[in-house]
Amino acid sequence: MDIQAPLNMTMLCDFYELTMGNGYFENGLKDRITYFDVFFRQVPDGGGVAIAAGLEQVIDYIQNLHFTEEDIAYLRGRKLFSEAFLEYLRHFRFSGDIWAVPEGTPVFPREPLMTVRAPAIEAQLIETYVLLQLNHQSLIATKANRVCRAAGGRTVLEFGSRRAQGADGAIVGARAAYIGGCAGTACTISDQVYGVSAGGTMAHSWVQMFDSELDAFRAYCRTYPTNATLLVDTYNSLQSGVPNAIRAFDEVLRPLGITRCGIRFDSGDIAYLTKQARKMLDDAGWTDCKITVSNSLDERLILVLLRQGAEIDAFGVGERLITAKSDPVFGGVYKLAAVEDDQGNIIPKIKISENVGKITTPHFKKTYRFYNRDRGMAEADYICVYDEVVDDTQPLVIRDPDATWKKKTMTNFVAKELQVPIFRAGELVYQKPTLDEIRAYCAAQIETLWPEVLRFDNPHNYYVDLSDRLLQIKMDLLNAARQ
Amino acid sequence: MDIQAPLNMTMLCDFYELTMGNGYFENGLKDRITYFDVFFRQVPDGGGVAIAAGLEQVIDYIQNLHFTEEDIAYLRGRKLFSEAFLEYLRHFRFSGDIWAVPEGTPVFPREPLMTVRAPAIEAQLIETYVLLQLNHQSLIATKANRVCRAAGGRTVLEFGSRRAQGADGAIVGARAAYIGGCAGTACTISDQVYGVSAGGTMAHSWVQMFDSELDAFRAYCRTYPTNATLLVDTYNSLQSGVPNAIRAFDEVLRPLGITRCGIRFDSGDIAYLTKQARKMLDDAGWTDCKITVSNSLDERLILVLLRQGAEIDAFGVGERLITAKSDPVFGGVYKLAAVEDDQGNIIPKIKISENVGKITTPHFKKTYRFYNRDRGMAEADYICVYDEVVDDTQPLVIRDPDATWKKKTMTNFVAKELQVPIFRAGELVYQKPTLDEIRAYCAAQIETLWPEVLRFDNPHNYYVDLSDRLLQIKMDLLNAARQ
Repeated sequence: MDIQAPLNMTMLCDFYELTMGNGYFENGLKDRITYFDVFFRQVPDGGGVAIAAGLEQVIDYIQNLHFTEEDIAYLRGRKLFSEAFLEYLRHFRFSGDIWAVPEGTPVFPREPLMTVRAPAIEAQLIETYVLLQLNHQSLIATKANRVCRAAGGRTVLEFGSRRAQGADGAIVGARAAYIGGCAGTACTISDQVYGVSAGGTMAHSWVQMFDSELDAFRAYCRTYPTNATLLVDTYNSLQSGVPNAIRAFDEVLRPLGITRCGIRFDSGDIAYLTKQARKMLDDAGWTDCKITVSNSLDERLILVLLRQGAEIDAFGVGERLITAKSDPVFGGVYKLAAVEDDQGNIIPKIKISENVGKITTPHFKKTYRFYNRDRGMAEADYICVYDEVVDDTQPLVIRDPDATWKKKTMTNFVAKELQVPIFRAGELVYQKPTLDEIRAYCAAQIETLWPEVLRFDNPHNYYVDLSDRLLQIKMDLLNAARQ
Repeated sequence: MDIQAPLNMTMLCDFYELTMGNGYFENGLKDRITYFDVFFRQVPDGGGVAIAAGLEQVIDYIQNLHFTEEDIAYLRGRKLFSEAFLEYLRHFRFSGDIWAVPEGTPVFPREPLMTVRAPAIEAQLIETYVLLQLNHQSLIATKANRVCRAAGGRTVLEFGSRRAQGADGAIVGARAAYIGGCAGTACTISDQVYGVSAGGTMAHSWVQMFDSELDAFRAYCRTYPTNATLLVDTYNSLQSGVPNAIRAFDEVLRPLGITRCGIRFDSGDIAYLTKQARKMLDDAGWTDCKITVSNSLDERLILVLLRQGAEIDAFGVGERLITAKSDPVFGGVYKLAAVEDDQGNIIPKIKISENVGKITTPHFKKTYRFYNRDRGMAEADYICVYDEVVDDTQPLVIRDPDATWKKKTMTNFVAKELQVPIFRAGELVYQKPTLDEIRAYCAAQIETLWPEVLRFDNPHNYYVDLSDRLLQIKMDLLNAARQ
C-alpha cells in the first residue's frame, strides 16, 4: 500500500547538518569517529518517568538513508557545497554503530536513550530526524502512559487524529499511544500499517441524518448489531439519547440475543450523566452495556471523574493525548560526547553552559539499571565509562550526580544494561520486537517502578548516578575548560 | 523526489467515517446530499485572530482520494462492511463541491473556513483529514504570525524540526510558519518541496570538533566566507566566543572585503549578552555583523527582550513555534449544516448542546467581510444564507450573534465574500497561489485589522454577525428541538 513505501527522509535535516558535513569534508574531518548521545533533561508534565519510543522508525530511516539525484541537484543549487562533497553524498550510507534503549523502556533524565558512533558527517546528518522521531514518540508514549495509569485498568482509546500536528502526528502518534498503554485508536491507517487496533461507530452527523434519533439508533443497531455503541448526546442525553438507545437495543438487539452494546457521551457533565445512564441501563436489563466517554479528557480529568464515582468503562482521549497538550515538547537533545583520535583513542568531550543543568556528561558510556534481587523493583540507574563492568555480586557505592556527597551502597541487586546494539558497522543487528511485544514490555517495566516515582505530582526523583571514574573525567574536563 | 510522490491518505480517517459510510450505503442514504462546515470556536492563546492555512494539502488529498486493493482487503478483514459497499469503494472518488477561505486569510471563531457539499459518504469520509490539515497548519500559521508581530519586522526563522510532532509536523509546519510570516526555516526538505527558504550554519558540535574555538571559527569562515554565522556560546560567550569570532572575521573575512557576517547565541541572558556583543562587534568595526538568538523563544519572550533593549537582528524560534507549545491545539470542527431532500430543497440542520457555545449555526451559508470603504480596514464579518446578497451601497444593520440586542448600522463599506470555490462536481476550479503569494496576502490582510484585534492580551472581539434571516432559522430550529 502506498503509505508503506518507505519514504526517503534523508533531506529532513536541519540545513546546518549539511553545512557542517561539507565543512568536515573540506577540513579533513570526514572520517573522524564521533560519539553522540541522545538524552533529555526533564520529564514532561513534571512527571517522574518517561517512556522511550520511536526506535523502529529511526531504524527504517537509517536503513533507507540516501541522497537522490534530485537531492544533490537541489544542494548544488545552493552554491555552498563542494563538488567533491556532492559526489561523496551520491554514495552516502550510514556505516556506524548505534546503541539504544528498547522501545517501551521507562527512562529518566540525563541518561543516554541512544548512542551513535560514526564518522562525523554521518553522525551529524542524522541528528534532526533521530531527535524528531524519538522526541515525538516518547512524548506521546509518556503522555499515554499517564492517561492509562489514571484510568486504572479501564480501556483508553486514542481519538485525536483530527487535532494531530500533521499526518504523522496522527499515524505514528497512535502507534506511540499504543506503546504507552492505549487499547486502540480511531485512526484507521494506524491499524493497517502498524496494527494498532482501530475502531469506532458514529458521529453526531449520523444521528442528524435520520428523521429522528430513534430511527438513527435503530438503523445503526440493524447494520452493526455486534458493534453498536450509540452516541447519545446529539439532542438531550438523559431525556432522549439514553431512552432511545435502550429502545433500539430492546427492539433490535434483544431478539438477536445480543447483550453486549455501548453508549457514548461526548459532552455534558460526565460524572452525573454516566451515573444516571448506568442506572437507566441496568434497570432496563442492559447491564453489559459499556459506557464510553470522550470530550477533552486527560489524566487529570479522568482521575477527578473516577473519584466522583463516574460509571465509565472506556475513555476516548483526543487532542490532549495526541498533542500532549499540557506539555507538548519532549526535549531530547543530541550532544557530542567523544571523538576518536588517529590512534583510535577515545577523547571525551564536554559542552559547558552557564546553566549547570545543560552541562553534558562526556565520554562513550553505558548505563545499567539496578533491580532489587528479591522484589524485582528498579532502584537506580548507573552510568559509567564504556569499559567499566559492574559486578552485581558485590556491594557498590553510588552517588548523586549533582549532590556528589549523597552516597548510597547498593547490595542484593541485579544489574542490567539499558542500551542494546542496534546497528554495527551500518548493519542492523537488532531483532525488532512486534508492537504488541513493545506494549507488553512497557507495561511490565512500569510495574518495576515504585509508586513514588509514578506519582503525577512531585514524584520521587529516581536516582541516575555516575560512576566514580566517569564523574572524575567530567570534573577534570570542567576544570580544564574553566582555565 | 520520493517525498513529492503524492501519498494516498485515504485511509487516514477515523474508523467511524467508514462505519457511517457503510451505514449510509446500507440505509439508502448514499446519495443524500449533505453540507458540512469547518469552523473553530476559539483562537489559540486567547488571541483575537487566527490565520487559515492547509488548503493546498487538502486539495492534494482530495485529488488523490482512492481506495487501493490493499485498503479494501483490510476493510473486508474487519467483517463489518458489505461487499456492495466495498465494491463501491473500489470506484470511490470525490464528486462534490468545496468552498474555502484562501490560505493566509485572517479568520475568526464560528465562521466557516471551508464548506463541503457532497453525497453523505464522501462528505463524511474526508472529515478527519480535512480537519487534521486545516487544524495543524492554521495552528502553526497563527502562532508564527504572533511571533513575527512580536518581532516587529525583525527576521524570524523557524528552527523546530527536531521537536516537531512527526515528520509532517516539521515539513508542513515550516510551510505554515512561512505563511504566518517567518522568513525561512532550518528544515532542508521544506525548502526543496515547498520553497520555504532554508538555511543554517553550525551547531556546538562543530566547535567541539576542533582543537580550539578559534580554529573552528577560522575553518568555518574559510569554508563559508559568505555564510559565516558563528555560534559563540559553546564555552564562554563574552570571554571567548565573541572575541574569537571577531578574530576569525578579522583574519579571514576582512582580507576578502566581506563585511556581512553573523554570530548566534543559543543560551545565557540574551538581553545582556547581545548588548555587550553589539558593542564589541561595533568597536571592532563589524557593524554589519548580524546577531541571531535562539533558545526557547516565543512571542512573549521576544517582546520582553526587545523591551529591554536587546540588540537582536534575527530570532531562531524552535519548539515553542513548531508545536505551538503554549496552546498546541487548533480546535476546528466539521459539522453537518444542512441536507438536501429528494426535490433538492436544502433542509438546515442544527446540533444542540448543553454548552451554548457548542450549538452550531445551521444551513448552507456564505460569509462576507466588510471593509471600510475609505480606510480599507476590516470592520465585521457577516454570515448569511447562501442565497442572500449584500448590497454594500445601502446601510446594513448587523447584530451580535449571542447578544442579539446589540446592533450596529454599517455604512460606507465594501463587502467581499470570504470563501471562494475550490472544487465543483469533484473538479478543481481554483487556481492555487504560490507560497510567496499566500505569505504576502496574509501580511497584507493582517494590515486591515485594527491593533485592538491584534493585541495579544484581551483583544477586542471582532464582530462575526448573522443575518436576520439566518438568525431566525437558527432560532426556529432551536425552538423546534426544545419541544
